[in-house]
Amino acid sequence: MYPNDGFRELDRQECLRLLAKVPVGRIVHTRQALPAVLPLNFSLDGDGAVLLRTSAASELVRAIDGSVVAFEADEVDAVAHSGWSVVVTGPAAVVTDPVERERLTRTGPRSWVTSPEEVFVRIEPELVTGRALMGGRTLRGLDPSH
Amino acid sequence: MYPNDGFRELDRQECLRLLAKVPVGRIVHTRQALPAVLPLNFSLDGDGAVLLRTSAASELVRAIDGSVVAFEADEVDAVAHSGWSVVVTGPAAVVTDPVERERLTRTGPRSWVTSPEEVFVRIEPELVTGRALMGGRTLRGLDPSH
Repeated sequence: MYPNDGFRELDRQECLRLLAKVPVGRIVHTRQALPAVLPLNFSLDGDGAVLLRTSAASELVRAIDGSVVAFEADEVDAVAHSGWSVVVTGPAAVVTDPVERERLTRTGPRSWVTSPEEVFVRIEPELVTGRALMGGRTLRGLDPSH
Repeated sequence: MYPNDGFRELDRQECLRLLAKVPVGRIVHTRQALPAVLPLNFSLDGDGAVLLRTSAASELVRAIDGSVVAFEADEVDAVAHSGWSVVVTGPAAVVTDPVERERLTRTGPRSWVTSPEEVFVRIEPELVTGRALMGGRTLRGLDPSH
């Protein structure tokens, strides 16, 4: 997030409340030295960690396991010029603890389609930032300079 | 994009057609050595370049001018489990040519709110990738491993 640009910054609690409203966000990482971004469905753990579920053999898992990633979600009304964007930044790791995996199988995100061997990936909520913009007289563009 | 994961890959023309449908995407870059992502309104230039308009003094401009960035847009139906995601990857640069600036003032993106000194940023469409997923019997999750 960019400070002093006229947006309303959201506190951690507001960010997590908004994140919990949406089923899909975007994971941002580095792939072959280039920025990469991909939508994924997710759920939030009790502590604000982002939980993903994917195939153990996926390239995504190899790309992000052990790396610091960002996970972004937003809702924008392009007519009203209002909305919000939240980013969780922290290390991503495949969940290896069997007890934790069992818990997440019951309570974690569902895959939109199942694959033979699935893993959960947890993104630690080290940094949770967000911003809101409002339409009407307090219009602020999504452009972060405003 | 991750190959061989069951999604339908979109060709460049399909990607640009979809991008042109939506007013807002997300710019992905590196900020203070961390992945950063921010929604922005945009327009497409004739050659598929992504055009942004922002304050000349914005931190975003300093962060991305001269860097390779990714710009992502998507539309996802979380109920039908269908949608698409397109990513344009290439170097971002502030447009400095006066003739080009004048052209973009007429035809480029509008700021959602104006600031005293604005610049256009152009992201070269060096790499344009996209994927579609379809609901129903051909359901494929957004999870790239499937």
